[in-house]
Amino acid sequence: MEGYGLFLVLLVSALLLGFLSVLFALVWVFHYREGLSWDGGSAEFNWHPVLIITGFIFIQGIAIIVYRLPWTWKCSKLLIKFIHAGLNTIAMILAIVSLVAVFDFHNAKNIPNMYSLHSWIGLTAVIFYTLQLVLGFAVFLLPFAPVSLRASLMPIHIYSGLLIFATVIATALMGFTEKLIFALKTPAPAYSTSPPEAIFVNTLGLLIVIFGALILWMATRPHWKRPPEQNSKIQQPNGGTPEGTEEESTMTDCSNTDKSDVEFNSEAAARKRNLKLDEII
Amino acid sequence: MEGYGLFLVLLVSALLLGFLSVLFALVWVFHYREGLSWDGGSAEFNWHPVLIITGFIFIQGIAIIVYRLPWTWKCSKLLIKFIHAGLNTIAMILAIVSLVAVFDFHNAKNIPNMYSLHSWIGLTAVIFYTLQLVLGFAVFLLPFAPVSLRASLMPIHIYSGLLIFATVIATALMGFTEKLIFALKTPAPAYSTSPPEAIFVNTLGLLIVIFGALILWMATRPHWKRPPEQNSKIQQPNGGTPEGTEEESTMTDCSNTDKSDVEFNSEAAARKRNLKLDEII
Repeated sequence: MEGYGLFLVLLVSALLLGFLSVLFALVWVFHYREGLSWDGGSAEFNWHPVLIITGFIFIQGIAIIVYRLPWTWKCSKLLIKFIHAGLNTIAMILAIVSLVAVFDFHNAKNIPNMYSLHSWIGLTAVIFYTLQLVLGFAVFLLPFAPVSLRASLMPIHIYSGLLIFATVIATALMGFTEKLIFALKTPAPAYSTSPPEAIFVNTLGLLIVIFGALILWMATRPHWKRPPEQNSKIQQPNGGTPEGTEEESTMTDCSNTDKSDVEFNSEAAARKRNLKLDEII
Repeated sequence: MEGYGLFLVLLVSALLLGFLSVLFALVWVFHYREGLSWDGGSAEFNWHPVLIITGFIFIQGIAIIVYRLPWTWKCSKLLIKFIHAGLNTIAMILAIVSLVAVFDFHNAKNIPNMYSLHSWIGLTAVIFYTLQLVLGFAVFLLPFAPVSLRASLMPIHIYSGLLIFATVIATALMGFTEKLIFALKTPAPAYSTSPPEAIFVNTLGLLIVIFGALILWMATRPHWKRPPEQNSKIQQPNGGTPEGTEEESTMTDCSNTDKSDVEFNSEAAARKRNLKLDEII
């Protein structure tokens, strides 16, 4: 892999930033706010930032770059697709629970729902994310879609995924802004006086932006793309036995990676498995 | 150009959305707020959203996709570089003036500066944008940088540009959120009661997100990339006369495009001017 060292540095940085963001979210709600519970109070609202940051930002970010991890390139693409879809499903569930928390909190406090730009864009992002997941499952995981459809939808799938990810981060930044203005006013020290909570959550906002920037960089470098591999029989509508099927048979899972030399000596061989269409499905 | 019709539809949509966003900004400040002036009051603050939306969003968006306009592919790349740099310079000046407006307003009203996440990320974006412009000028416009440096910096230049653009949009959304919360409270109808101004500015936020999404789509489609052309003498440190110089000589400006057939019949010829390195500088 070209620039493997740099990739590792960026990956570790992204993981650290992601963990740190989740940690910051927890410190925010436990140290500065009322913690977590499910009673219609502020502690129920607090599930909203915690679950969004954990699921909709951190886990979604990892789901986006899971194809780029070079030690998975010996695994079958189908397995990585399942991991990609699984992580996104977890993220979607956490996002939906976090929406329930905030609607429940609003209803208990008689605060109107869906009046803010944050809520408009946030709900739109959740809806598009769900559509993306369902469509991605139907087209790229189930074996029914023809290769031509997969090929034509893949650029849209990738673009939509990255756009939704960036939109979720923008929505989180709006959410921090709202929460800090509402929470930090008399009798608390106002947001404009920069109390410790304001500095802390602003810093959390920066962490998330840098995390997003790293994920988007890793996801868009062409030389860090997973090498193309042979289509499996499921993906070959004609059911033929393409060249290299024997090699493919060793790629149905990752169970043998411990035994083999994973120092990427076989990367060149992997790169040779280049049936053109499989690059995009 | 592959998908020329679709490109035109997207371009016209982006232009309409951009104009509409600027129009919305003007209606916002003139109809709902105190208009524009430079007296330390709210009307001075109002320059901030108007100039950011006009310059830092609309003009920056156009600057990003100026290379993609197929009717400019007969023009010299140097000319398009100047247009790209010029539009970005205008955007930067408008962004800086808009910052002066908001600092001046804050100082006149004794409101602290730089306490919000919006201000932290916004100022960072302006600083990075300025750096990007200066570095871009030094490396890609002045004739001193070696081709290898241009080639290695170009992916970073493109990524940074798109990231800053997306960050500016996210910052604008935070700004709308702040302004609506601060402006729409007693005695005005609160933001949470969804008065017409709230709906109007939320809609402006959506327009800007869609504008950004269209620009990012157009900017990242590989088949809508400007075809490679011969390096000009300025870009050839050895001062040699590469093949196709005669053709290059017709590309120093666009003055002859009216006379020639611009129906892209010559696109294939343009695509053939493919000195590999020039693709990335």
